Amino acid sequence: MTITITAFERSPDGGRGLARDTRVRWALEEAGQPYEVRLVSFGAMKERAHLALHPFGQIPTYEEGDLALFETGAIVFHIAQRHAGLLPDDANARARAITWMFAAVNTVEPPILELVTAKILEADKPWHEERLPLVEDRIRDRLKQLSTRLGDADWLDGAFSAGDLMMVSVLLRLKSSGILDEYPKLAAYLARGEARPAYQRAFAAQLAVNTARAS
Amino acid sequence: MTITITAFERSPDGGRGLARDTRVRWALEEAGQPYEVRLVSFGAMKERAHLALHPFGQIPTYEEGDLALFETGAIVFHIAQRHAGLLPDDANARARAITWMFAAVNTVEPPILELVTAKILEADKPWHEERLPLVEDRIRDRLKQLSTRLGDADWLDGAFSAGDLMMVSVLLRLKSSGILDEYPKLAAYLARGEARPAYQRAFAAQLAVNTARAS
Repeated sequence: MTITITAFERSPDGGRGLARDTRVRWALEEAGQPYEVRLVSFGAMKERAHLALHPFGQIPTYEEGDLALFETGAIVFHIAQRHAGLLPDDANARARAITWMFAAVNTVEPPILELVTAKILEADKPWHEERLPLVEDRIRDRLKQLSTRLGDADWLDGAFSAGDLMMVSVLLRLKSSGILDEYPKLAAYLARGEARPAYQRAFAAQLAVNTARAS
Repeated sequence: MTITITAFERSPDGGRGLARDTRVRWALEEAGQPYEVRLVSFGAMKERAHLALHPFGQIPTYEEGDLALFETGAIVFHIAQRHAGLLPDDANARARAITWMFAAVNTVEPPILELVTAKILEADKPWHEERLPLVEDRIRDRLKQLSTRLGDADWLDGAFSAGDLMMVSVLLRLKSSGILDEYPKLAAYLARGEARPAYQRAFAAQLAVNTARAS
């Protein structure tokens, strides 16, 4: 059955790979699954047809036969569960890898989303400059703990898993901030993620959409 | 095998059920699984023994034989996957229920966490009063979409699932803010969640810990 995902017709990041379809593309590439992409404009994202697929009017979505999913973490999990390469076979190791998926989106990403929100939606506010360091320090609290746990390992728990895919994707949001440079183990972890051939293919695919549109 | 979870020795909310062990207690009650609780002080949460269990120094954790997990969403998922009552058997319906688990923690909870953070960590800042309505409006954007999707249904997708358990738990954080009153369908949804006998037992169990400690 054909897998179809949605992505921004024109990503707000101009193709830096931060739009969440990149996470799904990466998972599909790790799993060796071909997929098609339907591009959606900002206007169409808020219209009835897309809202039927995604109640929060965002991308990506995932369609495969009569299954329709939204929410990146759930889509990545669905792919990881159906195909080899993203979750260990051992039940306990599998539960721990899933733990890292949730840790990425519910413990590490929220303070990072606060920074993104501050920079996009509150950049013109009088408190912006003074508040930013507070938000960044809350991110540092998490990064310090994550770096300690990672230590000198390549990945968070044994072999590369969907947990790493999600965590690397979350950390990628910080790349332009310079904060990651304070945590060399995490910067190296990110680089290992970005160096994976599957990530490279996913990144190139989303970039091609955005450069084609920009020209 | 005995299931042991951790919880605050003294919850910052004084027993209103907002500490995340309530979510895990609720899942265990829905699944009809007995469990033991090890209480952890704020000091002990940051010490080596607890950090080995939970790299971010939080509660809850979950131990069962040689399996140790952290991160509420992952623990609830683990319980839901092992026992009947929290995930549908049909594969597609199951994937959609898991979608709601991720939507709860990665789409609906982040703006709510921003509000919690603003009230706890930035209440003394000069921008606090002026900024609060912006944060609340970002929550309203999500609640409006969620309410539209829920419509007149009892639960988000068919029968009650771990997706509802997580979503109700996230919305409970807003109970004292009054914002939910603007969305009667969501307020009723919350009330349906709170009325479940399993939730009642989970709530009572965490309250007992906190009232015992307070006396």
